[in-house]
Amino acid sequence: MCESSAYLLKENGQEELILEDVVLMRPGKGVIVLSNILGEKKEIEASIDNVDLLHHKILLRPAEKP
Amino acid sequence: MCESSAYLLKENGQEELILEDVVLMRPGKGVIVLSNILGEKKEIEASIDNVDLLHHKILLRPAEKP
Repeated sequence: MCESSAYLLKENGQEELILEDVVLMRPGKGVIVLSNILGEKKEIEASIDNVDLLHHKILLRPAEKP
Repeated sequence: MCESSAYLLKENGQEELILEDVVLMRPGKGVIVLSNILGEKKEIEASIDNVDLLHHKILLRPAEKP
């Protein structure tokens, strides 16, 4: 299976785990909607930094505040 | 393995295959940079519509022209 874990890049450089086993990701207006294999859904104010399918990792960065 | 294929959503609703076996995806300013397992790289003026890891499919939509 190809689920990935989604992390949010914190200001201090650490990565906070947001959701495991993500199978669906949909960017919206200033948000990313993540769904996992269990049907859990999370919407987070962020943008995609990069998606690394070899390492099953989605890295998000916080949405820039206006 | 978890490579996905990246498609671009055309105006007529069809999906054009851009790159197969994508393992790395990085959004930039108005572009998406895709890399595949063979080291091929493509930069395309688009944004991410959605990423479906169950179906190994990345769907992009053309960047909006100013």
